[in-house]
Order: sequence, then C-alpha cells, then structure tokens
Amino acid sequence: MNDEQTPERYPERATIRDVAAQAGVSIGTASKALNGNGRLKQETRDKVVAAADALGFRPNAMAQSLHRAKSMTVGILSTDSFGRFTFPIVEALEERLAEHGIAIFMCNATDDPAREKQHLDQLLGKRIDGLLVTARRMDMRPPIAVPGKSMPVIYVFSQAEDPDALCLIPDDYGGAVLGVQHLVDIGRQRIAHIAGPTRFEAVTLRQQGYLDTLSKAGLKPVASHTLNGQWSELWGRDAVATLFDGKAEKPDALFCDNDQIARGATDALRELGLSVPNDVAVVGFDNWDVMALAARPPLTSVDMNLRELGRVAGDRLIAMIAGERLKGVERLNCSLVVRQSSDPSQN
Amino acid sequence: MNDEQTPERYPERATIRDVAAQAGVSIGTASKALNGNGRLKQETRDKVVAAADALGFRPNAMAQSLHRAKSMTVGILSTDSFGRFTFPIVEALEERLAEHGIAIFMCNATDDPAREKQHLDQLLGKRIDGLLVTARRMDMRPPIAVPGKSMPVIYVFSQAEDPDALCLIPDDYGGAVLGVQHLVDIGRQRIAHIAGPTRFEAVTLRQQGYLDTLSKAGLKPVASHTLNGQWSELWGRDAVATLFDGKAEKPDALFCDNDQIARGATDALRELGLSVPNDVAVVGFDNWDVMALAARPPLTSVDMNLRELGRVAGDRLIAMIAGERLKGVERLNCSLVVRQSSDPSQN
Repeated sequence: MNDEQTPERYPERATIRDVAAQAGVSIGTASKALNGNGRLKQETRDKVVAAADALGFRPNAMAQSLHRAKSMTVGILSTDSFGRFTFPIVEALEERLAEHGIAIFMCNATDDPAREKQHLDQLLGKRIDGLLVTARRMDMRPPIAVPGKSMPVIYVFSQAEDPDALCLIPDDYGGAVLGVQHLVDIGRQRIAHIAGPTRFEAVTLRQQGYLDTLSKAGLKPVASHTLNGQWSELWGRDAVATLFDGKAEKPDALFCDNDQIARGATDALRELGLSVPNDVAVVGFDNWDVMALAARPPLTSVDMNLRELGRVAGDRLIAMIAGERLKGVERLNCSLVVRQSSDPSQN
Repeated sequence: MNDEQTPERYPERATIRDVAAQAGVSIGTASKALNGNGRLKQETRDKVVAAADALGFRPNAMAQSLHRAKSMTVGILSTDSFGRFTFPIVEALEERLAEHGIAIFMCNATDDPAREKQHLDQLLGKRIDGLLVTARRMDMRPPIAVPGKSMPVIYVFSQAEDPDALCLIPDDYGGAVLGVQHLVDIGRQRIAHIAGPTRFEAVTLRQQGYLDTLSKAGLKPVASHTLNGQWSELWGRDAVATLFDGKAEKPDALFCDNDQIARGATDALRELGLSVPNDVAVVGFDNWDVMALAARPPLTSVDMNLRELGRVAGDRLIAMIAGERLKGVERLNCSLVVRQSSDPSQN
C-alpha cells in the first residue's frame, strides 16, 4: 500500500443494483439469479439474465468470490459516537456496499469497552462478513478483538495497532502541504500556523507539513510559528490576539488546523481592522460548509474527502470479504477548496 | 396519543443487557437462556438465570411477547441523508434497541425513490421486525409502501400521510412558546421573529406559537413582526439590517428560528453597536452547540431534545413489535437552555 498513491477509482460500469432495477427485482434476487443459487422461478431468473445482458453486466471474479460471504451484512462500530466527520464516511460507505447488496448494522459504543464487547458479540451472532471501526477522533485505539481473526476488519478515520487490519485515514501531512503551498504560491512570506491540540497525531503531521513546505520554499516560520490550542473559534480569536499584539513581525497569512479556528481568526482580524485576504490570507481545514461558507469572507479550506474515504473503505472491505488480504495504513489524498479568504477573485 | 403529554419515561431497571454483562455472555445468549429456546449448554443457561436473579431482572410481558419478533433487527431508512439532526436520534435509538438485543440496519435513500424501494426490498429480505423512516428535514413525505402492512412503521423527525404509522416529531409550537415566553418573562416588549422558510411546517407552527404567546401577554407584534428567510447566518444579519434600519420602533428582543440565524443576528447587532442582551435579547432554536456556544455572547436556545426523540422512538417501536398498535402524530416537548444572549447573569 503506497501512502502517496492517488485513491484508486474504479471505472463506472453497470452494477448488480442497476441489473436489479432494470429487472424490477431486489438486489438479493438479482444476485441469486446470476449466481444460480437460491430458489427462484425460472421466469425471474430469465428476466434478471436478460437485464444483465442488456446492461453489459458481467459479474467479475471478485463479485463471484464475494459469495463466500455468509450473510451479506457488515457491521460499523463507532468507538465514541457518530458525528460530522463520520456521517459522510458512513453514507458513502453504505451507498457503495448497497450496490453490492450488502447491508450495514450500525453500532455505537459511546466510549464504553463493555458496550463495545456486547456489540461485537451481537454482530458475530448475526454472522457479519466484515467489520468497520470508526471514531469521531482520529486517535489510536486498541485493536478490536475478533475471535479467531475470523473476518476482515477496517479502521476508517481511526487507527489501531492491529497487524491484520487495514486503517484508512486522510493524509494530514499532505493536506497541510496543500494549504501552506497555496499561501506560498500567492506570495505570502510570513505564514503562521494556528494548530489544534498536540495530542492528536493529525496535528503533529500537519505541523510537519507546514514546516517542510516553508523550508522547501526558502521561507522561515514566523516567531512562535505554531501555536497549539483547542478546536474552537475562541482559540482562533485568542491566537490572533497573541500573534498581532504589537510585535514587529506580523504574519501575512494564517494556516489553521480547522475551520472553526480559521473562522475565529478571521473574525478577530476584521475586528482589528485588518483585511482578509489583503492584509492576512487565511486557510482552514475540514471544508465544513457550515463554518467555511458563513465566515466573512468565506474560507479557503483543505478538504479531507470524507465521502471518498467512505467509498474506498467500501471497496476495500468488499475486496477483503472476497479473499484479498489488505493491511497497514492507507492515507487518502486531501484537496484544497479556494475561496475569498485567500483569493479576492473568488465569489 | 395526547399531543400535550410529557414524554413517558420508564423507570430504570435491570435490562437484558445488564444480565448478559453480569453473566459474561452476549445479549442473544442471555435472551435465549431466559426464554428457554435455542441450543445452549445447561451451564450457560444456569449462569444467565443466576445473573437475572441477582439483578432482579424479570422479563415482563412486553419483553416476552417481543419474541414474536422474527429477526431481532429493524431498519432505519433516511429519505435524504443522515445529518446533524438525525444522528442524535439514531444514536439514542440504537442505544435503546441494543438494550433489547435488537440490531439496526442503516439505509440512506438520498432523495431517490428507486433507491428507497431497493432498500426496502433488501430490508424485507432480511426479515426486519420494524422500520423507522427519518429525514434531515421535517417535511411531509409520501408514506412508505410496506407490502401487506406486515410490520410496524414509525416516522421520526419526519411525517407521512400514513394512517397506520406513528409519527414522532418535536413540538415546534410549544418550543416557540417556551422561547417567546422567556423573552416576555425578562420584560421585553417589542419582540420580533426572524423565521426560516415558510414551506416548512415547523416554521408556520413556530410563528403561531410566537403570535399566541405575545397575544396572551398583551403584547403586539412589532411591525413586519415575522421576516421569513433562509436557515443561515447571512439571513440573520440581513434581517437585523432590515429591522434596525432607522425606523421608529426597534425590537428589544429577537426570537430566531435556528441558531445560525440567531448567531448572524447577534453578530450584526454587535456591529451596529448594540449590546446583547442589554439592548436586544436573542433566543435561537436547535441548541446546536457549535453555533450556540461560539456565538458572542453564547445563545439562549430552544432544544428539540433529539436524543429523547430517539429513545421514545425505540420504546414505541418495541411496543409495536410486541403487538401494540400505535398511530397518529406524537409531538415531544422541547426545552429551553438559557445562556447570556438573554440573561447576563449566566456564564
């Protein structure tokens, strides 16, 4: 698994879902008809085969071997709770798995290991074919104890020291490089980093991305270049108060570890009489529409492509159910969405 | 079903989950042991019975008749997508159902009726015992077509013209009464309503709650008392610009249909040099922490108690699976969280 690799995209082609829709049957029925198993009327079977032919649908080897799956169900277990980071992931995952006729059980452990164990027992009792583990935060978590390593496990937006599992997370280092390089490209010279709490791996990776990008551009970090604080607007406002307190070398750009920080920073700059982006350009992280679009001006932001993360998790899980052995940590590319906080020509 | 009724709360007592934890077995095993079905070692059965005795667990009639359930699974189907309103509902629902050993399949129809139909077929194929239908928006939606009315259906945070289903929604009228009465109680005389789009039933109900509360207090609505716009901060700022444009009778309080509007309004008031709450008190709706706590000052807000909505949906679904016939529209109480935007003594 290559960390730098662009997320693989499969070509668009007819899925079992399309065949089912065309034949007017359920996905399960279409699947049975094409695989010659299950009890179906010959008429139904013929209708499905005709639809598959018309759409050019060919069940590939992976889809065939998917039939080693026992229940066509998987579980998604959240360590803490489902929140704004996990919704887009779970939605895209559900969409991708539904195309293959796989249903998702949703379980939430609310930070309680006993509850997690009970959920796992329940899911094993339902004979799920695979398990996704997620978390609101990207912290390292203990590996989940699947008895006998009997099924594939993927950690998504979450990591565990589990040598048999695959971990899918956003490329935080690369995301920071994108954001800071953009500030370099628009000619900024004194770029400060208003960061989140250092206990997050994401924060230390983004800081490294920031430092490496400045170094490559021949720029020096401004004094007290990285300020660590909370994931809040209040922290963004406080950090601006510190950075612009009358000292000589004021920043002309701020790279902020999330959109809440960036929004607080932007508000504080406006209240100091400084123009964003003319005096100070601002880049946030998350591309969370609620924050990024409501900020004045709207925020340029690094997008973690969470829906893509969900889709890839679905693809990888299907591959693993079909027999592929995937493991290690796979980091998916971020992208940059440019808005007025760094580019006055944007709407 | 009485619209005005306080949501029923069941007394805390040992659940099958507690028994399972105490006996060190899964919920399914505990359930089988107590109901004398399934193939279990006598030793396991004895251990569970001992745990049930120790905890004073008595499976009641409802729990017993729950065993008419076929699969111990239910589906939750979202019309549009899962978002910040539906996640607390789904989380609390999942928690409540897990206590009864019932697992949830999660499906998302993303506004596509064909996709919804496929999900429904798939869920029926999994022999779910009940179905919850939800939506990001509280609009009326077409009833879902369960063949033969073969299982209970609950619409939660969503409504349908389905004579056989139960709809659970927040009491928007009552929520508005709470918010506006609070402004009356702190002595405000000229209360304006900055509302959301009129196509939402919630908006028209809240407007009625606003008007009735003023009328009961002997107050007149201010000129152009309700302004309808979007669910955004921008709309909150624009509405304040209209209300405070130099006309004689300026409001001394604003009741806003969500926290984004209230936050935009608060920002605009500050920028006009007006103090919140001294010159103008502000009340929002949703009690969405991201908005309500980051606003300056933090917002007093009406809370729709979405987790309670999820818990009640779980209880009602269990009752319906056990044979109760519930239908109609049940509106659950909102509550008011008072912060500095209406009360300077709050922290």
